[in-house]
Amino acid sequence: MKGNLLYAQSGGVTAVINATAAAVIDTARKHRGRIDKVLAARNGVIGALREDLIDTYAEDWRALKGLRHTPGGAFGSCRFKLKGLEADRAHYERLIAVCKAHEVRWLLYNGGNDSADTSLKISEVAQQLGYELGVIGVPKTIDNDLAVTDCCPGFGSVAKYVAISTLEASFDVASMAESSTKVFVLEVMGRHAGWIAAAAGLAGRKQTDPPHLILFPEKTFDQADFLQRVRETVATVGWCTVVVSEGVRDGQGRFLGDGGTVDAFGHAQLGGAGVTVAAMVKDELGFKVHCAVSDYLQRSARHIASATDYYHAWAVGEAAVKYALAGKSGVMPVIKRRANRPYRWEIVEAQLADVANHEKTVPPEYFREDGYGISNKARHYLEPLIQGEAYPEYREGLPHYVKLRNRAVRKRLDEYLV
Amino acid sequence: MKGNLLYAQSGGVTAVINATAAAVIDTARKHRGRIDKVLAARNGVIGALREDLIDTYAEDWRALKGLRHTPGGAFGSCRFKLKGLEADRAHYERLIAVCKAHEVRWLLYNGGNDSADTSLKISEVAQQLGYELGVIGVPKTIDNDLAVTDCCPGFGSVAKYVAISTLEASFDVASMAESSTKVFVLEVMGRHAGWIAAAAGLAGRKQTDPPHLILFPEKTFDQADFLQRVRETVATVGWCTVVVSEGVRDGQGRFLGDGGTVDAFGHAQLGGAGVTVAAMVKDELGFKVHCAVSDYLQRSARHIASATDYYHAWAVGEAAVKYALAGKSGVMPVIKRRANRPYRWEIVEAQLADVANHEKTVPPEYFREDGYGISNKARHYLEPLIQGEAYPEYREGLPHYVKLRNRAVRKRLDEYLV
Repeated sequence: MKGNLLYAQSGGVTAVINATAAAVIDTARKHRGRIDKVLAARNGVIGALREDLIDTYAEDWRALKGLRHTPGGAFGSCRFKLKGLEADRAHYERLIAVCKAHEVRWLLYNGGNDSADTSLKISEVAQQLGYELGVIGVPKTIDNDLAVTDCCPGFGSVAKYVAISTLEASFDVASMAESSTKVFVLEVMGRHAGWIAAAAGLAGRKQTDPPHLILFPEKTFDQADFLQRVRETVATVGWCTVVVSEGVRDGQGRFLGDGGTVDAFGHAQLGGAGVTVAAMVKDELGFKVHCAVSDYLQRSARHIASATDYYHAWAVGEAAVKYALAGKSGVMPVIKRRANRPYRWEIVEAQLADVANHEKTVPPEYFREDGYGISNKARHYLEPLIQGEAYPEYREGLPHYVKLRNRAVRKRLDEYLV
Repeated sequence: MKGNLLYAQSGGVTAVINATAAAVIDTARKHRGRIDKVLAARNGVIGALREDLIDTYAEDWRALKGLRHTPGGAFGSCRFKLKGLEADRAHYERLIAVCKAHEVRWLLYNGGNDSADTSLKISEVAQQLGYELGVIGVPKTIDNDLAVTDCCPGFGSVAKYVAISTLEASFDVASMAESSTKVFVLEVMGRHAGWIAAAAGLAGRKQTDPPHLILFPEKTFDQADFLQRVRETVATVGWCTVVVSEGVRDGQGRFLGDGGTVDAFGHAQLGGAGVTVAAMVKDELGFKVHCAVSDYLQRSARHIASATDYYHAWAVGEAAVKYALAGKSGVMPVIKRRANRPYRWEIVEAQLADVANHEKTVPPEYFREDGYGISNKARHYLEPLIQGEAYPEYREGLPHYVKLRNRAVRKRLDEYLV
């Protein structure tokens, strides 16, 4: 089979998703006899539906080299969930029509568990319509919540960033605690799974090391118990670092971040879990408290990306093209761990059906006994993922990130509104 | 004169204040014929008053080497402002008594403009009491608001961090804007001076580059005008990055960060200017918005410290010891810029009296004409300060930061409570 390959990014972006994109383009170029061009969907599946495709071969080699070290999603991503086959059949058929019109024979869909599900459905519809299309899922998510794979490209870098930030800010609060700030709160991402919060635990080894308390979405928040532990930590250590996942909920199932209040300017407060926890500590314990919310900074911090994560991201992109050329469909290249120390891993093939719609949360044995930290088992799992610094090149004091030309491919079909 | 040298850190710490400390110790060790030991006050002037002194010569060379690359204040800092000579005479006299008891002949006080004032007063009291004491101020502040010096050690690194973070998060929001987040807000430090906010401006060159809008404490916030500009930016660029200084105030003089509200858990909201601006954009314009608050992360981000800043920090520490040995007092080594491109600078001597209690805000010619960005003049001033990456050493995926032993010197005086 010969034709074009269509690559699309989906969902929240990561510090290394463009490394996967670069690997896809790089590997495809080595097989020009079979793959004519790598097209990219602008803004993910939305672009694929709109027939808004990008010719990645119009980029020069310097841009493609820079792409490896550029955060964000270079072709645009989207939050757009395709529903089931019955509800959204028109969308699925349109996707196949777009693929046909552009001689797309392989679709590589780079995303999380929703994307795995979408990939699977596209693959089924293609088959039903008798259009030969190889659909390969490519894993990506900072949340690390994909089933089957040992870890997800994108997670190692956010883990490294969060561990370093926790460590650094703790040196700061330790200096100030005698006469000023005694409690530091860092809010991290992870709405349903506490992997990112767990990574902060790598900053310290002993219970007296920061972070002293981690609040996981897997654990129900108990205000009295938490405050008591903050008080104890300040009494023994002199200060306290708290890491809170944005997804933490109390006994009534309320997200800590859902303040539901209106500020003095008349606007609904958006303050998240970090702000709530900080206010609680200040009001109930009277300590001076500081709060940082890392938000997008954590998942775009390409300047301190994990080298391991970068290699993973590259490897899944490369393997996805190879799977495509081998005639596979409905599969995803995933990471399999062979050993912890020294860390060894390989790429293996997984069925999209086994990945789709599952959500891998932090298992019980990864928590410290008191539920406010990580176990050694978790440490052994997490440590390899943050090894190495994949520094970008710098120019004039700033990382040299690239903006692609993203030249549009001429449309061949009628307009389709999404 | 022969004796000990006492070094103290004061106020908010920086990513490179320990480089200054390391330079002080390193330089003093080269003059062992005159300087017996470098003592450090634990938690700044509080430790000096309590006679809680640290023998820095009890540290091994490995720790002192690691100190150069460790964020925070290694001996502890404090927020403790000595009042005038009349109000706090007992404190000043106690300081001199402690110096006497420990044969301290030189006091190096590493801080901002309050510290310069305190240093000056200590110097005066020593003279009045007939105790020969050389008092040298050593500049440090992320706020960059010290008079006389071209820039302040600590600022270059926070500037680099903020510029990089703005750049990276903007790549993220650009990827998501089509179907999700359209506005990203980053809150940065700078209660009275907008230098840190200005540094974010280095992330882009054109008005369509991020950050599209910077809110400075030097400019009165006008909600309608601001929202109109956000709307326009989203219309033309597709998305918008806003950087807001924590010190921004509206026409009534209210800090944007003073929400003055209580959340659903009954706690006073601590949400700062960033959260307020984000809520405003969401409510009034209906855009999906994300908000990051860098807080302590920005000033402790040693992992991406500016090499220029690091050299500055080292140089002021080294010069301070040399000034001390030259018999100077009531002075501060400051940075003088010789040229922008290539950047050339040197250390010169300034009078503490000229530094004390002045506050250098961003001058009018450093703002973009519309007041929401920086001018080329500002860019030329700021650019040299973020050049170079003073990467720390890594072990096991994390920066190898050190915790000193901080061995206490035996007390010789009666207890003194502060």
